[in-house]
Amino acid sequence: MVGSIAYDSVTSPAGTVENALGGSAVYAGIASRFHGNYLDLEKIGLVGVVGQDFRSEDIAMLESQGLDLSGLEVAEGKTFRWEGSYHGDMGVAKTHDTQLNVFGDFDPKVPSESTTPKVLFCANLVPMLQSKVLQQAKGTRISMLDSMNLWIEIAKDDLLAVMKSVDLIIINDGEVRMLAQDDNLIRASRALIKIVGCQTLIIKKGENGVVAFHDDEIISLPAYPTENVVDPTGCGDSFAGTIAAFLASNEGIISREELREALIRATVTASFTLESFGTSGLLNLTNDMFNSRLIEFEGILN
Amino acid sequence: MVGSIAYDSVTSPAGTVENALGGSAVYAGIASRFHGNYLDLEKIGLVGVVGQDFRSEDIAMLESQGLDLSGLEVAEGKTFRWEGSYHGDMGVAKTHDTQLNVFGDFDPKVPSESTTPKVLFCANLVPMLQSKVLQQAKGTRISMLDSMNLWIEIAKDDLLAVMKSVDLIIINDGEVRMLAQDDNLIRASRALIKIVGCQTLIIKKGENGVVAFHDDEIISLPAYPTENVVDPTGCGDSFAGTIAAFLASNEGIISREELREALIRATVTASFTLESFGTSGLLNLTNDMFNSRLIEFEGILN
Repeated sequence: MVGSIAYDSVTSPAGTVENALGGSAVYAGIASRFHGNYLDLEKIGLVGVVGQDFRSEDIAMLESQGLDLSGLEVAEGKTFRWEGSYHGDMGVAKTHDTQLNVFGDFDPKVPSESTTPKVLFCANLVPMLQSKVLQQAKGTRISMLDSMNLWIEIAKDDLLAVMKSVDLIIINDGEVRMLAQDDNLIRASRALIKIVGCQTLIIKKGENGVVAFHDDEIISLPAYPTENVVDPTGCGDSFAGTIAAFLASNEGIISREELREALIRATVTASFTLESFGTSGLLNLTNDMFNSRLIEFEGILN
Repeated sequence: MVGSIAYDSVTSPAGTVENALGGSAVYAGIASRFHGNYLDLEKIGLVGVVGQDFRSEDIAMLESQGLDLSGLEVAEGKTFRWEGSYHGDMGVAKTHDTQLNVFGDFDPKVPSESTTPKVLFCANLVPMLQSKVLQQAKGTRISMLDSMNLWIEIAKDDLLAVMKSVDLIIINDGEVRMLAQDDNLIRASRALIKIVGCQTLIIKKGENGVVAFHDDEIISLPAYPTENVVDPTGCGDSFAGTIAAFLASNEGIISREELREALIRATVTASFTLESFGTSGLLNLTNDMFNSRLIEFEGILN
């Protein structure tokens, strides 16, 4: 798993946090490891970079989660920082500041023992860095990628290029519309699949759930109905990390049923991220809490 | 069924129609009768008013559909007119002009033989007129109501009053947020249920499907994935009309399973309305077309 490791400052109607541990690889990694435990996944490794200001307790926490940090580089300079806020229905973050810091010069190196993972997940990151990772490693079962609107705006060609080299893409509804330049989500999705030639396209729609195109089939699921929306940061990353873990626990061709089950678990996982600031919703999650909400959510679906 | 009978002029990226037969009672009535045929519903009657300019071929068409028009009044003046357009993702209509015309002085009279229908459906209309109908008639199984943002803006107290006298409310997501003054849809829905005391609240979310609160349970369904969006006018009305017909075909307490089946059929029905201008999608609908899409949609859900 490659992605950002960040200190986030976030304001929402529920309050404010400053310099909270975040980043796509952190959320995806913790979510992945949560599921990896009961799915008996041996190793989940993070590739990324932090600055010299990175707190030792954050390293300790990631290690205590069971994540392999041999691909984590500590570089001269400061850790990546993001500052944003949420308003209204809290569907989209308003970015106030992004400081790439150590990611500006980052040259990712996948540890030699990790170049053939079962699942390679490029969490949201500069597309060129995702490309560099994909040149060194490929998932033996699947390579997958997440992204965000910023890269469509400032690095669209790089993003389309890296999209062409993965099997599964996770992206949100507004981003598909931007990429395909079509307001109709279904048409835009089919157009994007044609352009990049992926097998699976998963479109996150926030409070409106998820729609996935897998081969010639469609899966469409609602979100878990959350009253207590505190901080949407990392929801998409924990969603994607859950899918990565679930797909790493099986073999062969990915069936519609398997992907649907992964999406259901991803939806439930993201609902816990949403209910607290930062990673605390994920860190406090127990198997009992997860399973009980999973049963509740399946009740809503049927 | 009471509601508007209108001549609509609509522009969408797919083209333009002028003075097409429309209105909430027309869409709901035609959809209702489509389902009423295979559900063996004896009688579906419309209560409404048209002006002297109403075309005789439109009367003939409604009769040929099998709708009972004994509650249809022809008044001096012009038929209700609406002019609007759709843009972007076509989720919300932009209203250019609304002429109440004969609806301005309308005093609805429910035919004496129709004051105890199994289902009474007040389709979108001036809330005060919905109230007048509810004073004359009540559904023996259920009374239901649909509305729109315009009445929240100009007649909110009337709307809340009439909402308190029905069992089931159909409304869209933006309208629930407006009524409850809360951006979180789940919280807003629960607040509205408390305010009006209805048993069932169905929230239409356009391309994002539907969420329903029924007693203490939630049902959440995606929309049918439509690439060919031509004209969303009447989608909500055909959706609601389908539910009215389906609920009229059963007895006793409404179960979650029954409501879910009604919502699925309503979603599929609305998808046909969406694909053509005006009522033509509904008028050309056959049982074979409906059943084949129903099976396709159930495949997406499971």
